[in-house]
Amino acid sequence: MIQTPYLLFLGDAPDQLAAKVAQGIKDWRPDNAVGQYRMEGCKADLGLTDMDLAQAKAAGAKTLVIGVANRGGVISKEWKKVLVMALEEGFDLASGLHNLLRDEPDLVAVAEATGRVLHDVRVPEVEYPIANGEKRGGKRCLAVGTDCSVGKMYTALAMDREMKERGMKSSFRATGQTGILITGDGVPLDAVVADFMAGSIEWLTPDNDDDHWDMIEGQGSLFHVSYSGVTMALIHGGQPDALILCHEPTRDHMRGLPGYKLPSLEQLRDTALPLAHVANPACQVVGVSVNTQHMSDDEAQSYLAEVETRLGLPATDPFRYGSAKLVDALAAIG
Amino acid sequence: MIQTPYLLFLGDAPDQLAAKVAQGIKDWRPDNAVGQYRMEGCKADLGLTDMDLAQAKAAGAKTLVIGVANRGGVISKEWKKVLVMALEEGFDLASGLHNLLRDEPDLVAVAEATGRVLHDVRVPEVEYPIANGEKRGGKRCLAVGTDCSVGKMYTALAMDREMKERGMKSSFRATGQTGILITGDGVPLDAVVADFMAGSIEWLTPDNDDDHWDMIEGQGSLFHVSYSGVTMALIHGGQPDALILCHEPTRDHMRGLPGYKLPSLEQLRDTALPLAHVANPACQVVGVSVNTQHMSDDEAQSYLAEVETRLGLPATDPFRYGSAKLVDALAAIG
Repeated sequence: MIQTPYLLFLGDAPDQLAAKVAQGIKDWRPDNAVGQYRMEGCKADLGLTDMDLAQAKAAGAKTLVIGVANRGGVISKEWKKVLVMALEEGFDLASGLHNLLRDEPDLVAVAEATGRVLHDVRVPEVEYPIANGEKRGGKRCLAVGTDCSVGKMYTALAMDREMKERGMKSSFRATGQTGILITGDGVPLDAVVADFMAGSIEWLTPDNDDDHWDMIEGQGSLFHVSYSGVTMALIHGGQPDALILCHEPTRDHMRGLPGYKLPSLEQLRDTALPLAHVANPACQVVGVSVNTQHMSDDEAQSYLAEVETRLGLPATDPFRYGSAKLVDALAAIG
Repeated sequence: MIQTPYLLFLGDAPDQLAAKVAQGIKDWRPDNAVGQYRMEGCKADLGLTDMDLAQAKAAGAKTLVIGVANRGGVISKEWKKVLVMALEEGFDLASGLHNLLRDEPDLVAVAEATGRVLHDVRVPEVEYPIANGEKRGGKRCLAVGTDCSVGKMYTALAMDREMKERGMKSSFRATGQTGILITGDGVPLDAVVADFMAGSIEWLTPDNDDDHWDMIEGQGSLFHVSYSGVTMALIHGGQPDALILCHEPTRDHMRGLPGYKLPSLEQLRDTALPLAHVANPACQVVGVSVNTQHMSDDEAQSYLAEVETRLGLPATDPFRYGSAKLVDALAAIG
């Protein structure tokens, strides 16, 4: 569990895109973002107050989050100076970089001396149990995709926000590094050992109030041969009551797999639902989330209308047209 | 890769069942078993020549394999004496115990000093790649089960033996600790990190001759909520040409999951085959392997006949009636 709120470290980001983790935190959990820390030459700007470490400390920030990709995959000397100072000033550090904080002896030594915590969110910090399959109270929704990177995290976050605005009980449950940094907690599922994958998702989505929804961040795809095992564990560990089908209609092959075509939404539905019924016989497919970023407004609208007719399910692009339709569908079964 | 042949260490086994790993090695790879090492009070006997370390060394044994479960989950002082001596005598050690050899400082120190290797087959020793899904040469067969522990390993080993006897090209590919100790090589799939599961199976079953069959040891079940992710990774990483359905008809719930019923063979077929087609559109279900240990001969025969009629597939219990029918079915598509 990462202590919030955060000071968002943008370092010497070469452009706005390099700071997309920080952007995600600011977009989805603005209350977690006290300010931004930018070094000389930083080309990213989140529109937050620029703060030095003392100012951020005074403003209540507890953790410095590395919200930017590092160049060349290494933590530079210039970054190191700031990170060491942050530990000395009493901040914990949190990072989703491949280059782990815990692999830097100086950071480890200073963290130890100052009693601060280094969070590498790519690495599990919990000993997860083996899944027991027992029915838990509360409701759960899982986004499943025809492919990886079709908007599953965005869909779950957008629905979670809409549900909170309506006064529904909802928790976004992160299963990847960006989601974990956004919420301060979660399971880095792709780094969990095989035997404990489903158990980690049971742990992440425990017994809850009957009218509470866990909005579980999806990972991979049942149709992506590299990562389908992770998706399977989410479906069985999460024992979802509701599935949202996610799709990007313009993609001509599976991400990273040139020889593989995307399945249809019908194939996704007909594959995912029987598997979900193993863990939860009441599970329903409640809606479709389409990533229409490469379509004109006309194309997007007509594609969504066509999907609604074809599948008999509400369909929207939550980024472009909001997630209200999908939340209506959840509310109808909740 | 564990050096063969082995001296099989039976320690102070309280009964024959405690030595089932050693029994598996002797049954399936007798050429790997030079002799057995029994301590005072050992109640197991494989019918191999009893040897001390010097005799086994002279007979060519290269690795001492712990073929017995340890009492209380710890490596006792009495065992330790033999293991240290074995290292001093020039043996590597191999073990599938939960209590890892590498967690015993004295064994680590002696292994280092003598230049010997400690193999803990529960722990991956290879950095596996992420699966790329590329089509590989050669053919692959995977056993999938309605549940865990229904005879998938036995089925693959029995078919592999039958195929070798017929002069077919075949390799048993181990994915669990017992299988790895039997063959000296394999992937401990349940201990692999999620992102690399499918890639580890691609690594295990590489490009091969067109008429070569990899007989892949199955794990878990698509219908077992604790371990289904592992099974999924086998189906997509293994890109099987042939599936064998495995079943134990008398079980009244899924192993370790009292609330969960076993699926039918039809459900298994209809779930596994479309998923296998993602990685290999030519995949076929070729036969059924039934574990009839809790049925009389009459019951078993009539159950197998009924399955053959119902599914239109050859069905046998390879332990009781041999695996010839299943190998015939493979040969027909090979």
